Amino acid sequence: MSAHTMKLVTIIGEALAREPVTRLLREVGAHGYTLSQVEGVGAKGERTAEMAELANIKVEVIVPPAVCELLMERLQKQFFPNYGMIAYETNVRVIRSEKF
Amino acid sequence: MSAHTMKLVTIIGEALAREPVTRLLREVGAHGYTLSQVEGVGAKGERTAEMAELANIKVEVIVPPAVCELLMERLQKQFFPNYGMIAYETNVRVIRSEKF
Amino acid sequence: MSAHTMKLVTIIGEALAREPVTRLLREVGAHGYTLSQVEGVGAKGERTAEMAELANIKVEVIVPPAVCELLMERLQKQFFPNYGMIAYETNVRVIRSEKF
Repeated sequence: MSAHTMKLVTIIGEALAREPVTRLLREVGAHGYTLSQVEGVGAKGERTAEMAELANIKVEVIVPPAVCELLMERLQKQFFPNYGMIAYETNVRVIRSEKF
Repeated sequence: MSAHTMKLVTIIGEALAREPVTRLLREVGAHGYTLSQVEGVGAKGERTAEMAELANIKVEVIVPPAVCELLMERLQKQFFPNYGMIAYETNVRVIRSEKF
Repeated sequence: MSAHTMKLVTIIGEALAREPVTRLLREVGAHGYTLSQVEGVGAKGERTAEMAELANIKVEVIVPPAVCELLMERLQKQFFPNYGMIAYETNVRVIRSEKF
């Protein structure tokens, strides 16, 4: 069985970031990703007691470690100043079919 | 790039646990979380052959390790005796924007 | 608190693989799993520029390491030649209620 240690990057943010985020994924060389709708609930302003509910998108992409670094850096520099967004990475062991 | 090692806690359970779970998240100090609908299929009673399908909620929250411990303990003691539920944690490296 | 180190296996693929995948999960001894709909976007054919969007399913299941190995092997041998599909595993620390 050919398994590969890769990075799973999860990006959660405002739905309006969808188009620029997916363009970024193609630019850094991602071969595919999944998108789903989630309900984001976050602290609004200073007081945690006030929580705002938002329609968010969740993007998940599997990439090699070097692409992960590049992706995280570009998110931090180009996206985070402009969008409400969080991104996190974790290690995964991946198997895939030829045609995925 | 400022990245932080945090815990991603995923809680999957009966939809009716939504309100008490999200209240618990605020109590332990979580600043935000996401909610989504999933279809849960689980062994019903003794026989694995009989599987029940349920509308479940999936809650994902990112917290520091100490908050994760507290959250897992309170789930185990206060929620698991009363709700069909599973929770798991994994390590993630996180970057986020100021306004998320 | 009784926590267990387990494997979280995530399988993403064509919606038509739903029935055979869930049957496989029962065969390898999984006690439960969750299903959700995701939008998969992947490279189509040779050129990454052409991306196809598909209605995919995402199946998540928590199993002991030995079951994970068996599951990944059977996916690779029996499913990947026939379906567009990806599977990945990660380590999780799990707590669960008696009745989940």
